[in-house]
Amino acid sequence: MPSSPKSILETFDNPHPDRAYEIEHIAPEFTSVCPKTGQPDFGTIRLIYVPAALCVELKSFKLYLQSFRNRGIFYEDVTNRILDDLVAVLQPQRLTVISEWTPRGGLRSTIRCHYPT
Amino acid sequence: MPSSPKSILETFDNPHPDRAYEIEHIAPEFTSVCPKTGQPDFGTIRLIYVPAALCVELKSFKLYLQSFRNRGIFYEDVTNRILDDLVAVLQPQRLTVISEWTPRGGLRSTIRCHYPT
Amino acid sequence: MPSSPKSILETFDNPHPDRAYEIEHIAPEFTSVCPKTGQPDFGTIRLIYVPAALCVELKSFKLYLQSFRNRGIFYEDVTNRILDDLVAVLQPQRLTVISEWTPRGGLRSTIRCHYPT
Amino acid sequence: MPSSPKSILETFDNPHPDRAYEIEHIAPEFTSVCPKTGQPDFGTIRLIYVPAALCVELKSFKLYLQSFRNRGIFYEDVTNRILDDLVAVLQPQRLTVISEWTPRGGLRSTIRCHYPT
Amino acid sequence: MPSSPKSILETFDNPHPDRAYEIEHIAPEFTSVCPKTGQPDFGTIRLIYVPAALCVELKSFKLYLQSFRNRGIFYEDVTNRILDDLVAVLQPQRLTVISEWTPRGGLRSTIRCHYPT
Amino acid sequence: MPSSPKSILETFDNPHPDRAYEIEHIAPEFTSVCPKTGQPDFGTIRLIYVPAALCVELKSFKLYLQSFRNRGIFYEDVTNRILDDLVAVLQPQRLTVISEWTPRGGLRSTIRCHYPT
Amino acid sequence: MPSSPKSILETFDNPHPDRAYEIEHIAPEFTSVCPKTGQPDFGTIRLIYVPAALCVELKSFKLYLQSFRNRGIFYEDVTNRILDDLVAVLQPQRLTVISEWTPRGGLRSTIRCHYPT
Amino acid sequence: MPSSPKSILETFDNPHPDRAYEIEHIAPEFTSVCPKTGQPDFGTIRLIYVPAALCVELKSFKLYLQSFRNRGIFYEDVTNRILDDLVAVLQPQRLTVISEWTPRGGLRSTIRCHYPT
Amino acid sequence: MPSSPKSILETFDNPHPDRAYEIEHIAPEFTSVCPKTGQPDFGTIRLIYVPAALCVELKSFKLYLQSFRNRGIFYEDVTNRILDDLVAVLQPQRLTVISEWTPRGGLRSTIRCHYPT
Amino acid sequence: MPSSPKSILETFDNPHPDRAYEIEHIAPEFTSVCPKTGQPDFGTIRLIYVPAALCVELKSFKLYLQSFRNRGIFYEDVTNRILDDLVAVLQPQRLTVISEWTPRGGLRSTIRCHYPT
Repeated sequence: MPSSPKSILETFDNPHPDRAYEIEHIAPEFTSVCPKTGQPDFGTIRLIYVPAALCVELKSFKLYLQSFRNRGIFYEDVTNRILDDLVAVLQPQRLTVISEWTPRGGLRSTIRCHYPT
Repeated sequence: MPSSPKSILETFDNPHPDRAYEIEHIAPEFTSVCPKTGQPDFGTIRLIYVPAALCVELKSFKLYLQSFRNRGIFYEDVTNRILDDLVAVLQPQRLTVISEWTPRGGLRSTIRCHYPT
Repeated sequence: MPSSPKSILETFDNPHPDRAYEIEHIAPEFTSVCPKTGQPDFGTIRLIYVPAALCVELKSFKLYLQSFRNRGIFYEDVTNRILDDLVAVLQPQRLTVISEWTPRGGLRSTIRCHYPT
Repeated sequence: MPSSPKSILETFDNPHPDRAYEIEHIAPEFTSVCPKTGQPDFGTIRLIYVPAALCVELKSFKLYLQSFRNRGIFYEDVTNRILDDLVAVLQPQRLTVISEWTPRGGLRSTIRCHYPT
Repeated sequence: MPSSPKSILETFDNPHPDRAYEIEHIAPEFTSVCPKTGQPDFGTIRLIYVPAALCVELKSFKLYLQSFRNRGIFYEDVTNRILDDLVAVLQPQRLTVISEWTPRGGLRSTIRCHYPT
Repeated sequence: MPSSPKSILETFDNPHPDRAYEIEHIAPEFTSVCPKTGQPDFGTIRLIYVPAALCVELKSFKLYLQSFRNRGIFYEDVTNRILDDLVAVLQPQRLTVISEWTPRGGLRSTIRCHYPT
Repeated sequence: MPSSPKSILETFDNPHPDRAYEIEHIAPEFTSVCPKTGQPDFGTIRLIYVPAALCVELKSFKLYLQSFRNRGIFYEDVTNRILDDLVAVLQPQRLTVISEWTPRGGLRSTIRCHYPT
Repeated sequence: MPSSPKSILETFDNPHPDRAYEIEHIAPEFTSVCPKTGQPDFGTIRLIYVPAALCVELKSFKLYLQSFRNRGIFYEDVTNRILDDLVAVLQPQRLTVISEWTPRGGLRSTIRCHYPT
Repeated sequence: MPSSPKSILETFDNPHPDRAYEIEHIAPEFTSVCPKTGQPDFGTIRLIYVPAALCVELKSFKLYLQSFRNRGIFYEDVTNRILDDLVAVLQPQRLTVISEWTPRGGLRSTIRCHYPT
Repeated sequence: MPSSPKSILETFDNPHPDRAYEIEHIAPEFTSVCPKTGQPDFGTIRLIYVPAALCVELKSFKLYLQSFRNRGIFYEDVTNRILDDLVAVLQPQRLTVISEWTPRGGLRSTIRCHYPT
């Protein structure tokens, strides 16, 4: 994995920057690797944001998420990092990332991060 | 496509203008064309508004939505434009447009615009 | 149809007038006629109210709704009229009427009226 | 039916009286008799409360609800009475009773009572 | 059962302690024993919290929940105790425990506890 | 009601008469009147057939079903009559009519007729 | 309970005796009493039959089912008896009775009887 | 529209021609135009086949279905034509085409064609 | 665990031994222990049988299933053993046992056994 | 990827080889790579078999499926290969593999293979 997957993210100019409207993208095919067991994790990443000057380009967002495919990273960490990367690139008015994970050991987990906190 | 699809929209007098009540129309058969790939996009347009003096006539609203059938336009743009056109024609007390799109590249998107912001 | 279907509505004394509690009746078998096309419309009428001194008697409410069976009337109009009639007869603390209509021309509509506005 | 079904209700000491927490019991097998037609009514009773010093014992609550099995009583009345009886016995911080009834004459009804109002 | 199942719980350092984000773990395979009848109870435990310095380690949380497998304890008690143990170990910003139980005697129960109250 | 609603049904030539294929039309907005109580009945009519030389025209089929709107007729009778009328007009290879009725008196009914028996 | 609830069942002449068609009535509001515990049982009775000369009249079928309301009888027994009574009265071409019961002790039961076996 | 949309379909060699296995492709975004009203129709095309020497290439199948986007054609006709085209190009062991259409005039239609009949 | 949990099973005389009818009991609260990992397994046991002279008594069947609560046994083994025990005790005309297990390692399993094979 | 992922599969002795019973394992977290676009594919693998002398060990089956994670292979091919590998290792009485894939280009695909054909 590249040291900076954030550089994969591309943007385009918000066509209606004068209006505070909401954009939601749901990616149900997210997969990464558990750093403890080496086993793959599967989940859904949900991004909701109000753009300022920039919107995230969909294909680059998909490739950005795919960059985690073979990377070992915990639930809590990956969710916060995706939020950090998107906030850095988009500088949005507000932005939420939610990750919902398929069960492990009978436990089903969800992590929810917001910007600004 | 005509330069001004807004002109397709017809109205009728609100039969109960003294009461702030809510009207919702859901159009699950919306289709337009992706300007980048040329492939058709499919989605549901959800309109919710509180009328002032005018209501939108249903058949003209359907024809208005059909005018996007062969037009190349992005998710964010089409949602804001439908809101702009309806606000211009109806001058409502408040109005919301939500577009929900079938998955592309494994990503499912939703755009939500409100008037007044 | 009688000129005043409101007269069909019967009431009984609220057995617990000292408490502000909520009563909901859902009538999924409502049908009227479109005044434009002459075709039957089908929908669900949802009544939610907090009674004052009077409650609406169920059988008379059913007969009241049936009085619209062969009457030509628009979605927005019928919803507001049912609210007007019930408010006149019950003089409730608050009352809501919601009509949800089966699709016409691919469009699914819902009207929501509240008293007091 | 005994003149006071309330006496059937038993209580036990709230094991954590220092914390305002919520208890919900849903009884989908409630049945009583319509006093007008003599036909059985069927519904679900939903009890939600924040206990003070006492909790309702589950088996006694079940038997209390069964005491309505052959009793003629209207929807609005039975819901308020269950609330009155539980409030008298439990003296809770707050308490809600909701009754949801299977359709009669094509109409589906729900009654919602709260303490304090 | 050990006198202190709380000691089973392990923690790890919150990787993003500067952000107030939410973690949810749902355990649909919880089972304990009814102290009155000796029969097993089955339910789902839902934990939602905003971490401060510490997060609960998933495997230890699973083992902690399993420690109730053969223990006689009431619904209200077990829910409050899980909350007490997690609050003592994690010292979170806020924390909720919800237990939802499969029907007993036709009654379906849910208990909801919050910290801080 | 006209003495022969069957005359409302129109047909068009089967465009692929050489192939035994199946056509299904579902009409969830059927309503007639109970001859015993005078109350409206509501149901769904499901037509499944393999055409021979003729197909039923959709709009005429809708108008045919609407001709029962104010007619008093029993469940068993209306289902068999629709089958009889369609068989007479279409002379199909095989044809099924199923009527599913909304509950009356807590009873939900379905009638299924086939041609040939 | 009368010694012969079967006598409650009324019939009417099959309006289309020349065709082997199917009639289904679903009664989701059945209740009887467990002869062992004295507690009420709740279930759904499903009747499917092909009539010969007679059909069962709906209201009498409902009253027949209500005659079990306060009667102590086991799942297996009640299902077979309903089948026996209906076969005796209707002498149908074929007839099925299925009873589906709400959970008791965590166990959900279904009984299915057919005539002819 | 080209006179022969069939020419859009591309194939690839069946990688396991020795085994009779089943391939299903579901296209929920099909749209064509009603030749009578000029209004767009929307539906789902379901293709199920057992390949012989050839399989249909997915992208070409999508483009083939898109070629109907602005074409006026009836439900019964389009379903049979898709079957004819696919049978001509693939020469499969067996092949089914099912079209399910969104409601028009309150009627929901499904067409099912099989090869060999 | 006793060496022979089969001895827990009690029976009662089939009240209608002359008719081949079907009895189904579904137990969604089954739990045993994985003999490899020592972790609890959770599943649903589904029993379907046609009785001969004997029926299984429900409470004893529940206790029989509970006897596996702390026993280490594989999915395939427990399903076959339950079938063997029930066949030995009931000597039924036919009997099926199906076990459906909650996911382990992302894999969801079901075992189905029939008597006679 | 190893040249022979089949070698990952481990087996254990069927504990009840005298009975023809059915084992089903569902793996909803399967992912491989499209050899044409290089994009990841996601799907569910469903395995149903009747064992002869051997059963597949669950953990090795999971690791076997994970060996496709970064491998470029078509839907039709991977489904047939999984069937071939399992048949070679288990020599079962009968075995089915079904792969269900998340939508690509608006098309949802399913492949079904059986042994023996």
